[in-house]
Order: sequence, then C-alpha cells, then structure tokens
Amino acid sequence: MGQREGRSFKEILIGRPLKSRELFLERLDILSGLSILSPDALSSVAYGTEEILTVLVTISLAATWFALPIAAAIVLMLAILVVSYRQVIASYPSGGGAYMIGRDSLGTLPALMAGASLLVDYTLTVAVSVTAGIDAIISAFPQLHALRVPLDLLAITVISIVNLRGARESAAVFKWPTYLFVVLVLCMVGVGLLRGGWHNLGVRHTWAVPSMEGVSLFLLLRAFSSGSSALTGVEAISNGVPLFREPSARRAQSAMVILGVLLGSMFLGTTLLAHAYAVVPLTDNTVLSQVAEHVFGRNILYYALAFSTMAILSLAANTSFAGFPQLAFLMARDKFMPHFFQTRGDRLVFTNGILFEAIAASLLIVVFGGHTSKLIPLYAIGVYIGFTISQVGLVAMRLRSALQAGRSPWSDLPRSAFNAFGALLTSVVVVVFAVTKFSEGAWIVLILIPLLILFFYNVHHHYQAIAQELRLPSPEYHPAPERNIVIVPVASITRVVAHTIGYAKSISDTVIAVHVSFDHTESEKLEQRWAQWEPGVRLVTIDSQYRSVVQPVLRYIDLVKAQSPGAMITVLIPEFVVGRWWQGLLHNQMGFLLQARLVSRRDVVIAMVPLRLSGR
Amino acid sequence: MGQREGRSFKEILIGRPLKSRELFLERLDILSGLSILSPDALSSVAYGTEEILTVLVTISLAATWFALPIAAAIVLMLAILVVSYRQVIASYPSGGGAYMIGRDSLGTLPALMAGASLLVDYTLTVAVSVTAGIDAIISAFPQLHALRVPLDLLAITVISIVNLRGARESAAVFKWPTYLFVVLVLCMVGVGLLRGGWHNLGVRHTWAVPSMEGVSLFLLLRAFSSGSSALTGVEAISNGVPLFREPSARRAQSAMVILGVLLGSMFLGTTLLAHAYAVVPLTDNTVLSQVAEHVFGRNILYYALAFSTMAILSLAANTSFAGFPQLAFLMARDKFMPHFFQTRGDRLVFTNGILFEAIAASLLIVVFGGHTSKLIPLYAIGVYIGFTISQVGLVAMRLRSALQAGRSPWSDLPRSAFNAFGALLTSVVVVVFAVTKFSEGAWIVLILIPLLILFFYNVHHHYQAIAQELRLPSPEYHPAPERNIVIVPVASITRVVAHTIGYAKSISDTVIAVHVSFDHTESEKLEQRWAQWEPGVRLVTIDSQYRSVVQPVLRYIDLVKAQSPGAMITVLIPEFVVGRWWQGLLHNQMGFLLQARLVSRRDVVIAMVPLRLSGR
Repeated sequence: MGQREGRSFKEILIGRPLKSRELFLERLDILSGLSILSPDALSSVAYGTEEILTVLVTISLAATWFALPIAAAIVLMLAILVVSYRQVIASYPSGGGAYMIGRDSLGTLPALMAGASLLVDYTLTVAVSVTAGIDAIISAFPQLHALRVPLDLLAITVISIVNLRGARESAAVFKWPTYLFVVLVLCMVGVGLLRGGWHNLGVRHTWAVPSMEGVSLFLLLRAFSSGSSALTGVEAISNGVPLFREPSARRAQSAMVILGVLLGSMFLGTTLLAHAYAVVPLTDNTVLSQVAEHVFGRNILYYALAFSTMAILSLAANTSFAGFPQLAFLMARDKFMPHFFQTRGDRLVFTNGILFEAIAASLLIVVFGGHTSKLIPLYAIGVYIGFTISQVGLVAMRLRSALQAGRSPWSDLPRSAFNAFGALLTSVVVVVFAVTKFSEGAWIVLILIPLLILFFYNVHHHYQAIAQELRLPSPEYHPAPERNIVIVPVASITRVVAHTIGYAKSISDTVIAVHVSFDHTESEKLEQRWAQWEPGVRLVTIDSQYRSVVQPVLRYIDLVKAQSPGAMITVLIPEFVVGRWWQGLLHNQMGFLLQARLVSRRDVVIAMVPLRLSGR
Repeated sequence: MGQREGRSFKEILIGRPLKSRELFLERLDILSGLSILSPDALSSVAYGTEEILTVLVTISLAATWFALPIAAAIVLMLAILVVSYRQVIASYPSGGGAYMIGRDSLGTLPALMAGASLLVDYTLTVAVSVTAGIDAIISAFPQLHALRVPLDLLAITVISIVNLRGARESAAVFKWPTYLFVVLVLCMVGVGLLRGGWHNLGVRHTWAVPSMEGVSLFLLLRAFSSGSSALTGVEAISNGVPLFREPSARRAQSAMVILGVLLGSMFLGTTLLAHAYAVVPLTDNTVLSQVAEHVFGRNILYYALAFSTMAILSLAANTSFAGFPQLAFLMARDKFMPHFFQTRGDRLVFTNGILFEAIAASLLIVVFGGHTSKLIPLYAIGVYIGFTISQVGLVAMRLRSALQAGRSPWSDLPRSAFNAFGALLTSVVVVVFAVTKFSEGAWIVLILIPLLILFFYNVHHHYQAIAQELRLPSPEYHPAPERNIVIVPVASITRVVAHTIGYAKSISDTVIAVHVSFDHTESEKLEQRWAQWEPGVRLVTIDSQYRSVVQPVLRYIDLVKAQSPGAMITVLIPEFVVGRWWQGLLHNQMGFLLQARLVSRRDVVIAMVPLRLSGR
C-alpha cells in the first residue's frame, strides 16, 4: 500500500480498503442465518397490527374486532408462503430471488417486472423500517416528537455507513437484537394472554361479531392489504440460501419454518392483545408500544422492547441495504441497469447501490414527513408482485424441465398446484392492494414500476447499441487524423503562454493563437509584440462586443472546422497552477468554461497545459 | 447576434446582453440625483428612532425622555457631516468615496481599512434595509409575521435581479417612492405636531428631565450609538457627484444640504412624536408605524406610508447594491480583491459583486433570524470609520497640496479645522460604538475588518508575485519540451481506443498504452490481441488489487516522469460521447476522475479524446 500515506477521512469512516481476494462469505448455522435473514420479516410485527387497526377505526371502534379474522387470514397466507418458499429453496439452492427466477423461467418482461418491484420495495423497506423504528423511540420518549425526520435521516446515515464498511462481521452483530426482540414480543404475548389479557377479553365480550353497520367489503379488504405488509421480507431466506452451511438448502428450509412459526405467533398474539386492551392507533404511541405498556407497565422490559424494536427495524433496513445493491448488480451485469452498480468499492460492497438506495429512501422520508402510515400504502405491493413471479416461475420451470427430461408434465402436479395456488393468492393480494390503496399512494408505485421497466429496456438497448458501435470495423482498423490543427487562446504574452506555444509546436505544425479583443489599442499592441516574439505562429484577433471570451473562441473553432473538414482540432489552454486552493479562485476560470462548452463536440480535443507558479 | 438563437432563461430574467459601448451615465438634475442617492440616508428614519428607544426602555419608561436630547445631538452631528461633506464634494468632484480618498492621501492601510469597513457596511445596509422594510409590511399585516425570513430573502432576490438587469432607467423608478416617503413622513410630523401631538406633549408634562435613576452614561452612549445608524448613507451623494449634470459639484453640494434638512427634520419630528404618543418598540409594530397609527389612524395614508417605507428601504438596499460592486471593482483594479469583481456581465453591471453581496446579506439575515435590532449593532460602525477616513484624508490632502504649491500649510485652516473636528467627532462615535455595542455584535465587525485587510494584502501580494513570475525571462524565451510521452489508458480494444491511439501517434513518437488489470486471464487475452492489432505501441499492464483504475495510472505516470525528467507527459483518455445527457451517466466516468486527480500536476497535460457514438 505504498501510495497510501496516512488514513483519509474516507478510511476512518468506512475502514481500510480490502483486496479483491478478501471477498468471501461466512457460512452460518440455522439460527445465525435466521438472525441475518429474518429481521425484515419479523420486524413487520412492529407495524402490521397497527396498519390493520388504522383502517378499521375509520369505520368505528367496534369494527376493530375485524382485526382478528383479518390477522388470521394473513397468518394463513403466511403458512402457504412458507410451504411455497420451501419449494423455491429446493429448486433454487443458489438463492435466486424473483428477478433471477423470472429471467430463467419466464423471460425478460416478468424478470424486469420483478426487478422493478423489488428495487422499489427495498427502498420502501428502508424508509418504512426506519420511520417505524424511530416511531418506537418516539413512543418511549415523546419529547423527541419534533425531531422525527432528522432522526430518520440520521438512522439512514448510520445504517449506510455500516453497510459501506461491509457487513462481514454481521452475524455476531445481528444475533442479539433479533433474539431480544423475538423473546420480548413472545414474552409480552405470553404474559399478556395468560394474565391480564385473557381476563380483559372476557370483560369486553368481544368474541361476538359486531354490527356490520358501515363495514364494507372494500374497507375490510383495505385493512387486509395494510396488514399483509406484515409478511414483507419472508422471501429473504430463499434469496440467501448460500449463506447457510451445507446442506444449505435443508438448513434454509428449516429456517423458513421457524420464521413462519415465530412471525405468525408474534403477529397474531399482538393483534389479539391489541384487541383485548382495546388499543387504537395514536399519533405518538405505536400500537405495539401501547400493548407493551398494558402488559409490562413503563418498566425496564417496556424500554428494552422499544429499543429492540428500533434495533430490529434497523436490521431490516440493513437487510434491504444488502438486497438492493445485490439486485442492482445482477441487473447491471445483465445490462439492464447502469454499469456503475457493478463497481465494488474499497470495502468490496456495491457502494453506488448503497448510496443510491440511501438517497432514495431519505427523499421518500422527507416527502412523506416521516409518517409510517403514509408510506405503507406504497409498500408491500412490490413484494407481492415478487412473490407471484417467483411462484409462477417455479411452476413454469418444473413444467419445462419435465418436458425436457421427457417426463410427464403432470409428474410434479401436487407441488406445482400448491405453488400455483400460492401465486394466485399473492396475485389477488396485488390486485386488492392496487385497488384499495390506489388513491392513498399505491398509484405512485403502479406508475413507477412500468416507468422503471421502460428505463431498463432503454438502458439495455443503449448498451447493446454502444457495444455494436465500439467494435472495430475490421481487424486492421487504424484511423489516423488527416491533419492536426492546434488552437491556443491567448490573452497576453506570458511565460505560461510561451510554455503552451512551445508544447503546441511540438505536437503539430499548424498552431494558431487566438486573441479575443475588447479594446483595439491593446490588441494592436499585442499583435506587434507577438510578431516580434513568435512570428512563426499566426495570431488571430477576434473582436468581442459582449465581453465574452468563450463565445468568440467557439465560433472561431467552428470556422476552422468548416474550412478543414477531416482535420482534428486540438485546443490548448495556457493555464497556471498555484500553490493553495484559495489562490485558484483569484484567477480566471476561462479554461474550465471553455472545456465545459467544448466537451460535447466531436473531433475537438481540449486540454489545459499547466505551468506551476509559486504565487509567493 | 448570429450565435444567439431564441432567448435563454437568463435573458428573460435579466434582459438582452448589452454591448460594451452602451455603457454610459445619465446626467441628472438636483432632485433626480437626490432621489437616487438619498434613499439610503432617508430610509434610516424607518429605524433610527426605534433603535434609540429600544435601548432606553431597558432602563425605564420615563428614561425614553432621553431620546429627545440624543436625537438632537445626532442631528447636530448630521449638520457637521453635511458641511464637511460639501467640502469633500468640492475637493473630490470625481466622486471618490473613502477608499479612493484614503488611497490617494493617506496610504494603503487607511484605504484598505475604509474599503473593508464599507464592504461590510454595504452588505449590512442591504440586510438592515430589507429586514426593516419587511418589518414595515409586517406592522401593517401582522399575519405575515411567520414569513419574515422568506419575505426578506424574496426581497433580496428581487432587488438582485433588478440590479443584474442594470439600473439605467433608475431615476424614473426612484423618484416616486422617495418623494412619497418624504412627503408622507413630513406630513405625519406636521399634522402630528400641530394637532394631537402638541396637545399630548402637554398632557404628558414630559418636558421636564426625568429622574436619573438607573440611567448610566454607558446606556445613554449606547442609545446614541444605536441612533447614529440614522445617519448612515449621507456619504452617498459625495460618492455619486458625477451623476449630476454640470456644474455637478455645485449641484451635489445643494443636494447635500437638502438631504440634511430633510433627514434632520424627519428624524427629529418622528422622535418628538414618538415621545408625545409615548410609543415604545413592539415586536410586530415598528415605532414609525405606531406613530403613523396615532396621527393618521389605520387609513389609506397609514398604508401608503407602510408601503413607501418598504419601497424606500428597498431603494436603500439598491443603492448599496450599486456601491458594493463598484467598490469591489475599484479594489480589484488595484489588485486588492479577486479579478472576477472586475468582470462586467451581459448587462454591463458587475455581476459577481452583486451576487456576492446578495449571498452575504442573505446569510446575515438567516443567521440573525431577520431581526433588524439584532443586525443594528453590527451596522454603522463601518460607515463611521469611512466618515473618519474621508475627513482625515481631506485634511491630509489639503496640507500636501498646500506644501507642494508652496503655500502656507495654514492657508486652508478654517476648512481643515472643520474637517478635523468632524473626523474627531465621527471617530469618537466609532469608539463609542465599539465599546457600547461590543458584546451585542460589534465584535464580529471588529474582528472581520482586520481579517479582510489581511485578505486584501494577501491577494495583492499574490497577484504581484504571479505577475512577476508570468513575465518572460527574456524577449527570446521559447521553451520547448525535450520530449513528449503520450500515455493512453485502455480497457479493451474498441473503435474509441483505435481513434485515440491514431491521434496519439499523430502528436508523438512515444505512445504507451496502459491497461489496469483486475483479472489475469483477461489481461493476457488483451495483450495477445493488442500485439496482433498494434504491435508498434507498447501495452503496459498493471495489476490492481484494489479495483482502482485511477491510482495505478497515477503511479505509472509518476514512474515515467521519474525515468524521463524534462519530458512532457500527455495523458489521452479515450472517451465516447453519446447523444443524450442521461446516456452519459451510463458510462464510466473514469476520464473525469483521472482528470480531477491530474489537474494539479506540473508537466502533465491531460485530455479526453472524444468520439461521438449514436447510442441508438
């Protein structure tokens, strides 16, 4: 590391650069793997119940009863997804994700649809997880209320920096917040149901179905859509199969079941208790926090839950910070996203993807004022599109491989039927989501996804066109400029100009000095001095009525180009470099202006010829 | 104007570009000249009385009586300044200003002191005038209270745009608001004193001196300092002598007297009425506005005064927008300020000075929350330093010219004595100001002025050093590089690389292609293809463990430089240009990175060799 002297600010922030061969993966056991891949799903407990209740209270307090059947339906869907994703894991042990599955089995359009949906959803996961995490902290410390958005942005910054450092030591870091959150929520549910909760349920006599007054199918479906955000992230394990120690597919499948059981019981338990304690959503106190207050009181366990909620939501955001850059990398490799998403930074992570996601999520948070419930209608629709494409892709793949192997297409019927049913269910959720949440914000996503797909196609087409144009027309292609005309703008005769003219004469026989004149007397003096000093180089004087240097020089270049087609034109700008940065501000920035204007012209090479002066 | 197709946004905003020969001055009669040069001084009536009262009410309500003698003392000082400045006009008919007078008669340090003071004060004039103008509007429409700072910034933006357009049609624009303000204030004073005011004065029995309890000399002097902000701007006429029609000095002297009479009577009258009506400063209602309410009631005259106050304060800010760029230009011409303050923009105004002042004033307003009374302690000290230097300079100049002409140095005694007395008075005000306002904010200015002077000296020294270095060492100086080595970074063999190599071979015999390798197999393949395609150009492969292209190329350049001292090194970066801006983002920005890193190295010329591709 000879060229690296001392540690730059960047190094202190994100750590020493890693060599390419240091890229490796730690292989994990079931629990460690689960602790890395589950936070996205488990953390949904922090807002799932709340989102259902937020819709139902708009009908009536009594209507909150419907949270119970809705939660049950969502848990049923969870069970189906767990079974379906066990099969995805078996068929895709390399951990494909919806984009890869779609690409391999359904074609480009479904793959890009999955890609667009997931990129949008990864970004929303970061935004929603961060705002929900800060909500948990604000519930515990309401005096922080006014700092909501700054705290959100601070959290994103911290998570971005952690990710830019690389999450290689992650399992050790991830384990404890995840375990703590799971244990505390299960403890809350257990204690709550056994002790006070059960009793209160009786007191409210709320097992009975309430009056249906004001209750419409539309509103119930909307509540169901909101609640199904609780299942976002369950696909993470199937994407991360290679993280597990061998036999990794088997371990991943077990992790999937454990995740399903944990998530189901935590979500259902919280919803039951919320109903038992007649909790309704408040601005500065989350439903989970209110339930915890009822069960624990405001004691150490309550605050531990608040912080572990914040922690697991941060981990969920973190998961997404791994997912987005990885997917962007895969799509960039396939030339559907800009190349720069392929570049690994000093710490071997996809720096550009991380920065891009951080900025996009920050913008979302600022635009929506950090309100979780305003972000939720945009969220989850992409995840369910991904669910659907994965499962349809699986069915298509089995059919194809059966046909290729000469087996009956029906040989995999039971499993395929299950996946098809899962796909049907999740696609229905997509439609329900789109319809019931449309006016609340889902329209943004429904416009954004097609736009992104269009963008992917454009990028792909452009890269292919460029690749075509870049190919040598023949193996013996050696283009050479007919002639090289060098133009040097000069203001006066100085050492810097002399230096540039000397260089210009060394690279071409045709050197023209151009002087832009504001004042006849002065330019005549210059012409005389020039004729004495360097009679071999022609000095062209151009009058400028508008005190602009750049415009007349550009016009002169156009003139020379028109007169000498086929010639290469090189513009050399005499420039002196001074010692300190502020001194640079004291001199004319004409070179930069000219360069900025010339940079897009074909056949014009522009360079500043620097001469260092001390300025002291 | 062949090259200008259609009107750009800039043209719509600030108007068509003007030719250099369109620079001329309209010559004005006394009243028109006064209307352009007096708003800065006259508008001080909007806050002068208020600033005195703000200090006095901190003692007691009764102590506000002291506003009367303080105002009288300030008006006396005004009279002395008017007489003194009539002599400045006579001696400096070209309209010098404190910087020019100081430079010509006292030397560099006093001149720079005056320059620094006035630049600071011009900026503060903009800030104070704008906030006070918006205060007048908020007094009339208190519901705008919350928009104070945005309104301030909007006002600065509008005034900046007006100035960027150039204020050539200004007299016509300036006349009416100035006349209206003067007439309304005089009308208010007259009506007030004749009718209710006089009566109330009697009612309050306040002619008697109140108890001196709690009244300290320090506080009275502080009140005096605050009130003397009412005289800021009286020097403007002496700076603008050439604006008047011939005999311009005589006309300017008459204008000076008129200004003194108007300002004195308006300021004294307002202070008397404020006392009569027992007005004290309020947050959302200025003293001037309260007095007007008492005299007029909230009728059309009241609102007319509010708007004309806002208007004349805007004109005051405008005056300062002429003064700052003009002074910056003069100092830049003397090489004490950066060159760019000398550039006239499309509309022949000093664009950079205007923008710089607008940004500085906006920052001040934001930092001080748009509160006029918080800005006032910073204000005026610079103006009084300018007053002092002008008058001392005048005395010194007379002495010198008397000595040069062989006259007795005492020949000008009466006039010189008067100027010396004026200088003594204003220098005492500076000291009183510095002491009594020190902790409230004057310390900022007292630190800033020496720093600025230091900056001016540094700039001057730097420009002189550079000018020295730029001079040709001999009339026959023709430096030529011993050798020109061209380095071309290549990633693969493409049409763009072929184009750049062709160009490189046309400008030098020594062309080296450099490839940064991340992968041995690929770089070996490239080496084989290269040997077949272009055996005449050496390809150097450098391994990069850290996936960086820029670092290894820089190290290679250093190596070549070390091996070939005296050679000129040219780096040519193959680059393709695509049709649309967004397509540019899809390609590696390696060229820009390399250029940014190389730009400060001596003896390295860097250029991108562009080839246009369609990308379609």
